[in-house]
Parts: sequence; C-alpha cells; structure tokens
Amino acid sequence: MEIDKNSVGLVKKQFFTFAEPPNEFIFENGQKLGPITLAYETYGTLNRDKTNCILVLHALTGDSHAAGYYREDSPTPGWWENMIGPSKAIDTNKFFVVCSNVIGGCMGSTGPGSIDPKTNKPYGLRFPLVTIGDMVRAQKRLIEHLKIDKILAVIGGSMGGMQALEWSVRYPEMVNGAILIATTSKHSAMAIAFNEVARQAIMNDPNWNNGDYYNSVPPVHGQAVARMIGHVTYLSDTALRKKFDRNIQRGFHPTSSFETNFQVSNYLKYQGEKFVSRFDANSFLYLTRATDYFNLAETHGDGSIVQALSKAKAKFLVVSFSSDWLYPTYQSKEMVKAMKKNGIEVNFCEIQIDYGHDSFLVPNPKLSSLVKAFLEKLSSEI
Amino acid sequence: MEIDKNSVGLVKKQFFTFAEPPNEFIFENGQKLGPITLAYETYGTLNRDKTNCILVLHALTGDSHAAGYYREDSPTPGWWENMIGPSKAIDTNKFFVVCSNVIGGCMGSTGPGSIDPKTNKPYGLRFPLVTIGDMVRAQKRLIEHLKIDKILAVIGGSMGGMQALEWSVRYPEMVNGAILIATTSKHSAMAIAFNEVARQAIMNDPNWNNGDYYNSVPPVHGQAVARMIGHVTYLSDTALRKKFDRNIQRGFHPTSSFETNFQVSNYLKYQGEKFVSRFDANSFLYLTRATDYFNLAETHGDGSIVQALSKAKAKFLVVSFSSDWLYPTYQSKEMVKAMKKNGIEVNFCEIQIDYGHDSFLVPNPKLSSLVKAFLEKLSSEI
Repeated sequence: MEIDKNSVGLVKKQFFTFAEPPNEFIFENGQKLGPITLAYETYGTLNRDKTNCILVLHALTGDSHAAGYYREDSPTPGWWENMIGPSKAIDTNKFFVVCSNVIGGCMGSTGPGSIDPKTNKPYGLRFPLVTIGDMVRAQKRLIEHLKIDKILAVIGGSMGGMQALEWSVRYPEMVNGAILIATTSKHSAMAIAFNEVARQAIMNDPNWNNGDYYNSVPPVHGQAVARMIGHVTYLSDTALRKKFDRNIQRGFHPTSSFETNFQVSNYLKYQGEKFVSRFDANSFLYLTRATDYFNLAETHGDGSIVQALSKAKAKFLVVSFSSDWLYPTYQSKEMVKAMKKNGIEVNFCEIQIDYGHDSFLVPNPKLSSLVKAFLEKLSSEI
Repeated sequence: MEIDKNSVGLVKKQFFTFAEPPNEFIFENGQKLGPITLAYETYGTLNRDKTNCILVLHALTGDSHAAGYYREDSPTPGWWENMIGPSKAIDTNKFFVVCSNVIGGCMGSTGPGSIDPKTNKPYGLRFPLVTIGDMVRAQKRLIEHLKIDKILAVIGGSMGGMQALEWSVRYPEMVNGAILIATTSKHSAMAIAFNEVARQAIMNDPNWNNGDYYNSVPPVHGQAVARMIGHVTYLSDTALRKKFDRNIQRGFHPTSSFETNFQVSNYLKYQGEKFVSRFDANSFLYLTRATDYFNLAETHGDGSIVQALSKAKAKFLVVSFSSDWLYPTYQSKEMVKAMKKNGIEVNFCEIQIDYGHDSFLVPNPKLSSLVKAFLEKLSSEI
C-alpha cells in the first residue's frame, strides 16, 4: 500500500515520563504515584515562537495515534486521519499537532494494568481513582516538557471534549482556543446509567476477580457486554436502521438457539470481541468512572456553570450532533449560554447528521470546515 | 390495609391447561409440546351474550395479575390497577376483563423453567423457541375455553401491544377492537441491539450453563445486568434527570471503588437484583427473542404492513408516547398509515409525557380517557 499524500505519513508513538523530582504525581484524590508515563504523538512542526501547537484529546477508548501510519503496511491510519494532515482541517503544514493519551488508560500511559515498581505487579485496583482533572494535569506536564507556554487550541470529542473543557478552565493562561465536540460539562443520569450497567457487566464477570486478572483469564465476557452497551449508545436509531435495519446475516452458524441471526447482533458481538483484545477492562472502569464524575460546574464554579466558565480565557467552538442522544445538543447549548453570559467569544453549531454520538469520528465536510475556519481565525489573531 | 373501593378487590390466579386431545401444542417452528398451561385472571362478569370481554395482554416481564389484590394484606395490587376496576378506564362494572400470561414465560404458564413430564426435569433450552404468534395461539385456546366467540377489545402495551396486533390480524373474526399502546409492528435495529446485549449478558454468565441451571445457582449476575440494560431503555433522559439527576445516594457503602454513589446507579442495581428473584433468565431469553423476531408485515403480509393489516377487521386505538425512544412514535404512525390505507377506523394519539417507554404503566388521565372513550364507543356499536 502506498500512503496517501494527504496523510502525515509514517509516525511513531512517543513516551514522556515524569522522572524529574518530585517523582510522584499527586492525584486529585490525594494518592501519589510515580513515575508516570504518557504516550503521545506529534505531527507537523513547532514554529520558532511555539505558537502553533494544537492539542488533540481522544475519547474513552481512543489513543495517541490520531493520524498517519505506524508502518508502510499498516492496515489503518490513526483515528482522526480525516481531520489531521497537510491541508486538512487540522493542517499539519501550519500546525504542530500533539495527541496525548490519558493517565489511567492502557494505550502506553500509566494505568491500572501498568507494573507498580514497588511490587513488580500490575496496579489493578490499587491504581488511584483518576479524574478528568488528573488527565489534564498530567498532560500539562507533557506540554511543559515540550517547552510550549501557550496552546493555540485544545480540541476533542466526547471524553476528549471534557478534557479540552477542563484545560480551558484549569489553565486559562495556556489556552488560546478550545473546540468542544459532542461533549458535555457533566453526564446526564442516563449517561451515568449506561456506564454503570457496563461497569457492572465487567465487575459481575467472575474472572474480573476484583481487578486482579493480569496473570489469568481477563473478564472477557463482561467486557464484551460492556462494549456492546457502549457501542449502541454511540450510534443512533436512524444510523442503525440505515446500516442494518432487520437484515439477516448470511452464512450464520449459531452456537445456541439464542444467537439471533440479525446483522446488528453479529456486528455488536464482533465489536465486543474486538474490544476485549485491544483494551484493558480495568482502564474501562477507571475512565468511565472519570467521565461520570466529571462536573465542571461543581469542580470549578461552586455548582454554577457560569461561574466555572468565568475562569476561561479561550475562544470556543462548540459542535453538537442532532442524533447524539448520549450528549444531546441541549447540553452543548447550556455551555454556550454560560459562555455568552461571561462575554466569551463562542461559535456554536449543531450539525444535522444521523450517525449519533460517534459522528465526530466520521468524515464530515461541515465539521472539517468549522474547525478549519476556527483555527485559521485563531491563528491570524495571535 | 383496607382495599380501595375502586379496586376489583381480592382476585385469584387461575390456570387453564390444554388437556383435551390433541394433547400437544404445535409451535410455529413445528415443535410439539404438551400439556400447556396458561395462567390468567379475570375481573368483572361476563354478560349473557358474552360480548363484553376485554383481553388484556402484558409486557415482557409482566404477568396475569393486572388488577386487584391476592390477599387483604398484599403490599401491592396488580400492575394495571390504575386502569382496571369499577368505573376506571377498563370498567369492571361493564366489562369482563381477562388478563392472560404468555407461553414461554415464568409466571405460572408453561415455559423453559417448567417440568417436562417426559423427563421430570425442567425444559431449559429444550423448550421450543416461541413467537408472538404462539403466545396468541395459546391465548385463543383460553378464550375458546371461556366460551367467548368474540372479544370486545384486545389491549396491551409494549410486548402486550404486539400480541394485541397479532390477535387482530390472525383472528380478525374474533376481535372487535384493538388498543395498541407504546408498541410496534417490528423492532428497530436499536431495539434488537439492546435485547441482544441483554441476552449476551445472561449467556456470558458461566452459571447460565447453556440454560441448565435449575438445580444450581442461576445466572443472577448476567440477569441483573440484562435487566439494568432493559430498565434504562424503558425510561427517558428527561425522566431519569427529573427522578435522579446526578444526586448522590446518602449512607452509601461501596463494595468496590467502582461502585459509584449516584442514586441512579443504586436504583438500577436494585432493579437488577429485584428482577433476579422474580423472573427466570431463560424466559427472558425466550421472550426477548420473540419480540425481536416479531414482524407483522413479514408474517402476514409478504413484507407489506399494508397487506398484513388488510386482514384486520377491528377498530383500532393506537397510542404512542413522545419520550418513548425504544418504540418511537414514527413506528406507531407507520401502523396507523397502513390501517388508513386499508380504510380501517383508527384513532391515533401521541401523548406528550416524559416517562419514556414505561409511560403506559404510569397513571395518566389522557391515556385513561382515550381508552375509556374507545371502549364505550365499541361497546355501544355492537
């Protein structure tokens, strides 16, 4: 395969470890742990003034591999290949793009599956409960390590949008602009409910063993069910109807009379099984919990979203999707309203699209042009 | 406790067993089994002409106990107490109300947990795969046993609505009127998806043991997760927000760091645990599968809903709920459109309510008055 000219091409996962004293990272809950490693990737070139950095933040099960290919023969590029590259919405000819993984994850950063140097065993549930704030605080160390004082824009969808929002309020002096896509300042009861059920599916699997499964069979069954639950919530009624409707899977060989032969069932089972091989069940527990407890108003505004956002100095672009029922448009509008009350410059757009919450991962000319225009304007103003 | 005067009062579960020859019931898939028992209850009195029978059909995990109390000290009445009783929407002063359980269930009717007389062991997965058609065919035997030739109205919500719809098309000569509430002529891909995940949660529980768990520990963990998934889909974003929002459970004692202390989480866990004690996991598999495969157009109309409904002779009342995202209003409208194309007399109403799919179980003056008026008109026309 020849790599597309519009791709950033071959890229490499990099690692940043806080090894400088103090060696430990203090989590928001007070627990300490160190050293901490963050996996990240960069695309494009940092300019001399270090004013062209775009920090890309990923969703729940994403990773630092946002664009390009690891090898000439990699079957797939990074997860936001359609957005990041030369002349694309996040233009690597102009910008230095950093995509950072999250603390607590399992894609190269320190998380519950990492080896605790004190015991030489995986942390498991001894890993501190992480917050979106912890993720962002660790990322700040990475940005400082890269000698960048001010980020042109933080951008992310879903849990990535929560991080972007947290960045803009926690470190207002470091953020020129923030792009929040398909995200929320706090989970609804329904979003918490679905996460809770997914976690219960994992914790009810006997192989979960209270998080100590690294030397035995992981809770693959529970984790597959958890993923299936999540996956349905990322899509929409219309998207599922258009993609699968009630179509029957040909050549289906049931292993039980209750294996239905609907394509949508097979698709979900496939997604569940695929997920098990690429993601750590404990990280799923840690990260979903972090999103459930994320509440910008509570953490930064004494319960008031307006007060919380009064700390932000960035310009904002907020994008929601009409078919996203996990983080519905009304949640974006709440944020936008609070920004406007603070006199913050904000562009808001609800994109009409059937694809549900996952729409931000799908190539979309409207999303691309909104992001491109916002970044160009930001860039011209500094 | 004194029983309310507006209640049907003390009632008793009854059982009808097909013991007459042929002794066996032939399922739609060709398998035979017998004898078959259906649990049912009746309220009110059958008139001399036998023209005042209302057949009430219940949802997935419901039962024949739709109204009244089993004992003076029963803590709760039947599940549709607010709709059935003297002077209520389904007026037991005027009507003879029959509520029938379903074949394949676990509430007194023959199902996978019943003892197979040939082996003296529970059927488990040896029980034939049931369909909505099978449920209705068994109910027809019950109605014949009660010496009723023609039912004034069949009425049901959710899976009960599917049975009512099936009744009206399969036995058009026996049905004067049909009331379809929060139901559909076929599941969407999303509804199938959620059921599939719920079934996977049960089947992935090692205690499920391919359906043979009746002499050991049942798959309680998987079943609880299955119920939690279902329960979220029965509610709505707004209902959950109004009821729980992000409120924290007081006096919460977590058994693990991932037991979140949101009220909504605790509520769901409670629902999951309660369900395990009152319902059989295999019945859950059988009945959800029956709803997934229900497709009126395919079974009765060569793929055309208009053609399928051309067989119906009943008058219809179709009610949907604005916040029901499991069986959304567009599905009711499809049925109504097909009825109108056939010149069928149909009343349709979408009730504006936040409570989601489960709205049909909640006392609602609008629903009551629609049903009352429809039944009175039907009654006056015979």
